[in-house]
Amino acid sequence: MAKSEHRLRADFGRCFDGLAAIGRDPAGGWTRLAWTGEDRAAREWFRAEAQALGLEVERDPAGNLWAWWRPTGAGPPPGADQPPPADQPPDGDRPPAAEQPPAARRPETGAVAVGSHLDTVPNGGAYDGALGVVSGLVAVAELARRGVTPRRPVAVVAFADEEGGRFGLPTFGSRVLAGTLDPASALDRTDQAGTTLAAALRDAGLDPAALGPDPERLAGLAAFVELHVEQGRGLVDRGAPVGLASAIWAHGRWRLTLTGEANHAGTTRLADRHDPMFGLAAAVLAARAAAEELGGVATVGRVLVEPNATNAVAARATAWLDARAEDDRTLDWLLAAFQAAVEEAAGRHGLAVDLAPESRSPAVAFDRDLTGRLAGRLRDQGLEPVELPTAAGHDAGVLAASVPAAMLFVRNPTGTSHSPAERAEPEDCVAGAAALAAVLDELACR
Amino acid sequence: MAKSEHRLRADFGRCFDGLAAIGRDPAGGWTRLAWTGEDRAAREWFRAEAQALGLEVERDPAGNLWAWWRPTGAGPPPGADQPPPADQPPDGDRPPAAEQPPAARRPETGAVAVGSHLDTVPNGGAYDGALGVVSGLVAVAELARRGVTPRRPVAVVAFADEEGGRFGLPTFGSRVLAGTLDPASALDRTDQAGTTLAAALRDAGLDPAALGPDPERLAGLAAFVELHVEQGRGLVDRGAPVGLASAIWAHGRWRLTLTGEANHAGTTRLADRHDPMFGLAAAVLAARAAAEELGGVATVGRVLVEPNATNAVAARATAWLDARAEDDRTLDWLLAAFQAAVEEAAGRHGLAVDLAPESRSPAVAFDRDLTGRLAGRLRDQGLEPVELPTAAGHDAGVLAASVPAAMLFVRNPTGTSHSPAERAEPEDCVAGAAALAAVLDELACR
Repeated sequence: MAKSEHRLRADFGRCFDGLAAIGRDPAGGWTRLAWTGEDRAAREWFRAEAQALGLEVERDPAGNLWAWWRPTGAGPPPGADQPPPADQPPDGDRPPAAEQPPAARRPETGAVAVGSHLDTVPNGGAYDGALGVVSGLVAVAELARRGVTPRRPVAVVAFADEEGGRFGLPTFGSRVLAGTLDPASALDRTDQAGTTLAAALRDAGLDPAALGPDPERLAGLAAFVELHVEQGRGLVDRGAPVGLASAIWAHGRWRLTLTGEANHAGTTRLADRHDPMFGLAAAVLAARAAAEELGGVATVGRVLVEPNATNAVAARATAWLDARAEDDRTLDWLLAAFQAAVEEAAGRHGLAVDLAPESRSPAVAFDRDLTGRLAGRLRDQGLEPVELPTAAGHDAGVLAASVPAAMLFVRNPTGTSHSPAERAEPEDCVAGAAALAAVLDELACR
Repeated sequence: MAKSEHRLRADFGRCFDGLAAIGRDPAGGWTRLAWTGEDRAAREWFRAEAQALGLEVERDPAGNLWAWWRPTGAGPPPGADQPPPADQPPDGDRPPAAEQPPAARRPETGAVAVGSHLDTVPNGGAYDGALGVVSGLVAVAELARRGVTPRRPVAVVAFADEEGGRFGLPTFGSRVLAGTLDPASALDRTDQAGTTLAAALRDAGLDPAALGPDPERLAGLAAFVELHVEQGRGLVDRGAPVGLASAIWAHGRWRLTLTGEANHAGTTRLADRHDPMFGLAAAVLAARAAAEELGGVATVGRVLVEPNATNAVAARATAWLDARAEDDRTLDWLLAAFQAAVEEAAGRHGLAVDLAPESRSPAVAFDRDLTGRLAGRLRDQGLEPVELPTAAGHDAGVLAASVPAAMLFVRNPTGTSHSPAERAEPEDCVAGAAALAAVLDELACR
């Protein structure tokens, strides 16, 4: 394994550094918001890397990029510099076919896709999204170098606007592709500079009116595997370099509007006030208390206070609740506990309360067969296949409704996410890419 | 008194309505921010009203307008339509001179000023500031109609930018005049549209470089009386139409910065978070608890959360504390209790805390002799001279450091301030203007 691992590590480093050179933000970290110049540069980088491997790049009707490695006859596999005989792997890396379980065949000729996204949150880290795309490219390159040829089409996908950092629509590309987000309903959304999504898409060379789902593409997929840097400390705490996602938690966002009465901060007696900030304080405390009690997570991270003046009792406070739990029923309980605590405080302070859902994603269970195959490949590498639930949304979670999907996590020593502090050790990244290569080999090349 | 009161009421209504026609805001209430078109229209209205009374209008070096009624020999008093003989008051309204205490004479020839301000907060009410200016004008008009002639100069003042609603510098005009605000330090401040104070002043026809104090003008004042609509429920609760300010509370503003760690709202375990929103919640609760304990008022009405994203644990929360108390020592105690509670919460959540003073105004005691004279004139009208402290800043509070100053409050049935809901009944306004006329008569015309 030494030669292959060395090669994979060198290829990974070169490829990762190429993407990490794009979107460095003078204010810290990386900023590659969807449909900006930085995003365009990252997409052009993807196209160039894929074409250098001989892959055929296309953009789907939702704006996602697909780099295809197709089973084109008996010719040399694309990207293989020195095509070895098909029956004689160059490095002895490839385990005998007889040791492998039969490949997933749903449909029989279905394609196998791997990938993630290229965009980042503002001032995010270098790994989120990027690691999955880079790992997909280096996994294909590794297989090609080994002389493996695909029996089914293989795709490395770069989903568009996964973070929603610019227009507030996370997993935009995968949801439009799957038909669970109607792009027409979102085209008027504006970013902080006032640019509409429609204008941003046109700037990026897309026709907003032509945006839409592609059910045939999804029906043609036999499997999708997303590799992602872990966003918490699950693998660090278990001492595992790579792990598997068991499920994505149920997740919802609610907008809480607390209406009181604007008044003078000096002359209004405390007893006469209807200060919505007390509803806001209750919301912050109630979110955590409910999550602690029920084993979920809940966060108030966004707030709007009006008129937001130092010398005025506020008229209105709006807070956004982000809450996640293992299953949908627990999430309902969490929300009910939150609402009861906020309404109690609002009653004491004479505030009107409105709690409106903004989005809700049900819990996602990943494909057991596909996850089991990934576990087998990790064991082949001598790694314990730790399984973790995740509370973060991912393109794999969106696709899971229509495609057998699974996720690989790579250990993040800081446990920090959406921050320049997120990290992964090169050897862990290589272990992840090797597992991805192994499962691609198993599913698509046997 | 019936004829005089009827006349005063008609004059008050006409004058008040003239000013209230300026700066109506389609979004609600009145918006006359300093140095805007609405402010200019109000200042032009003031100039025209004063000139119609025969007063001489000038602008001081701080941008405040002074309308002078000067003791110019034995001629008819300005504005008197039908000058009666000086020794024969037309209505029998004027009490015999022997019943009056001797006028305040500090200095012997010092002027007596009354007034308030013309600017409003955004979407404010029709009375704040306006009532004092209108009452000053109608008080002078009433005296002139009675045939009274001033023995000392009398001024009706319209102070500039009292609210600080545009550049965040309340009592701008009086503080520049008194030399307690250096205008040069503030000229770079911008309003929400990005206009600098310097540019706004130039637009209003002022030379920013020439702005400065006028100690001689203040030294030449024997007294200043500001009439103002009450901003709370003190007079309503006591059933008094007009009252007196005993003092202005000590007042401070502090900026509280709570620094935590940005993180993913889904994947970061509750125990691993350093969420500054918990410091913010503690600040909201601690401000009120400390004020309740110590008998002051404290408010968190302005907040800035970064990055302010629904799916991110915040990195930083900034909150502004507005706190006021009867005296400076109580305000210190209030701040200490607030700080201790915030630091306790910050310690539990691993947050860095910075509490920085932004401004501090010591408690102001109004002039006892002048307030006693006003009390006497209220008793003359059959009114109980209720005294109230106020927690709001006023131009009279700024002037009190160098000029004997006092305040009259007119009952506000809603107790609401800085809002279109602020109000005063016409008969209460007339009672206030009559008290102002009586004290002007006593101090300047005897």
